[in-house]
Amino acid sequence: MILYGTTVAEKMYDEIKNTIQIQGIRANLTVILVGDNPASLRYINQKQKWSAYVGMGFEVKHFPLEVSESSLLECINQCNQDQSVSGLIIQLPLPIHMDTNTVLRSIDPEKDVDGFHPINQGKIVVGDPTGFSPCTPAWVMELFAHYKIPVEWKKCVVIGRSNIVWKPITNLLINAWATVSVCNTKTPSIREFTKNADIVILCAGKPWLLTLEDLWPNTIVVDVGFTVVDGKIHGDADFEPIHQAGHSITPVPKGVGALTVACLIKNTLKAARNLK
Amino acid sequence: MILYGTTVAEKMYDEIKNTIQIQGIRANLTVILVGDNPASLRYINQKQKWSAYVGMGFEVKHFPLEVSESSLLECINQCNQDQSVSGLIIQLPLPIHMDTNTVLRSIDPEKDVDGFHPINQGKIVVGDPTGFSPCTPAWVMELFAHYKIPVEWKKCVVIGRSNIVWKPITNLLINAWATVSVCNTKTPSIREFTKNADIVILCAGKPWLLTLEDLWPNTIVVDVGFTVVDGKIHGDADFEPIHQAGHSITPVPKGVGALTVACLIKNTLKAARNLK
Repeated sequence: MILYGTTVAEKMYDEIKNTIQIQGIRANLTVILVGDNPASLRYINQKQKWSAYVGMGFEVKHFPLEVSESSLLECINQCNQDQSVSGLIIQLPLPIHMDTNTVLRSIDPEKDVDGFHPINQGKIVVGDPTGFSPCTPAWVMELFAHYKIPVEWKKCVVIGRSNIVWKPITNLLINAWATVSVCNTKTPSIREFTKNADIVILCAGKPWLLTLEDLWPNTIVVDVGFTVVDGKIHGDADFEPIHQAGHSITPVPKGVGALTVACLIKNTLKAARNLK
Repeated sequence: MILYGTTVAEKMYDEIKNTIQIQGIRANLTVILVGDNPASLRYINQKQKWSAYVGMGFEVKHFPLEVSESSLLECINQCNQDQSVSGLIIQLPLPIHMDTNTVLRSIDPEKDVDGFHPINQGKIVVGDPTGFSPCTPAWVMELFAHYKIPVEWKKCVVIGRSNIVWKPITNLLINAWATVSVCNTKTPSIREFTKNADIVILCAGKPWLLTLEDLWPNTIVVDVGFTVVDGKIHGDADFEPIHQAGHSITPVPKGVGALTVACLIKNTLKAARNLK
């Protein structure tokens, strides 16, 4: 079975659209963009398209590549104060003359709909529902909910190496009472763990990391990997043989991108409600 | 080999004492106590004794059991403002008419030397060294450092179910590049994981949870369990057979208690330095 993210995302957008209409919520997502990175522009287009679809305001504050860090911080501070901004995000990457952590942490945690602020990461750890979960990990949980895949007491293996995907997914699964084996990209024998798993979550950014030989039958594979090789997008799993052998697996693309934006829009709705 | 916590604690106290003397640091630990729980009084005595030893100020703000939550919050607010208070902790448990989370989160994160505030938990997740690590998880890392036990690329199993020990230990180990299997007290087959581990960390509060039969040779066992059965203190491991079979293991007592206070004192020194 192919676990499409797009199907789940479409359902989420319609639910959010209904909620906004019925409850008359005014929500606005503001994106700060520095420079003209083509991938960044593509992501922003997606965010704009779906904001419009659900009936949410959308604004891009666009700076040239050479803008100073202090000017950027001033803009963030204004957005923090501005009651009409519900959610505020910085489109990464930032140019190298800026300290990304300093910039990200200057966002008011109540508007941090990307969920990058340490207090939002900490709220995930302690299971506090008032925080914002980073968008990619949140979609993994949405995907499980949609396809009725229980994680409680299941053996999950998470393979990766990042603050914004790998660690929050781990903490979300721990809170959902999964037994989680957390492997990194240098774990000596990943197969030892994957061979024993009910669910494998890949977020390493290493194409062909997981092959059919690494799995027992009936393992569910969630592939958050996203690497461009020779102009083609690859996940971390060797998709075709794993899918042919009957495993449930998420495709790349038509997975991550779609649902990540949906979770961002959902977080922005939550932020708008909190501000009321 | 028995891995004594007391040995490591004594070394830490002497290092802290030297630092305070040589650098002329003024540090003060303030403890808020509600009621007269005998275990709480015993813990506070330990904290007082070692604060005095290292040359740190120590104050207990003692309230009767029936104090209102708002009076307590007012006291915390005063301590937050007070420049002479470097570290501030609430001795748990609090009476049931109070919301423990609300009380704990009203402590200024910069003085939260117990490391309970979500922002300090979040800083552990993202590996930000400016936060305060909860004291028991921090001592586990101190213990590994002292006994020169490397955790990088090692297979660690953590068994527990708490925000203040189990989850932070997990996140500290993940950041130290261990491969961590996170089991909870209802994981169907814990042996499947422990049999395959280099290091097992127990923080479940279930005596005799881990027996010799659950281990391969040469596994290191760190026992953070602490349960009183018939007036006697037990860890989570069946200590004697595991020790006799040649595994390195921490004893209970002479482990957790000693090092937990040492890490609290160390956090208070860090807070005092930050306030300067």
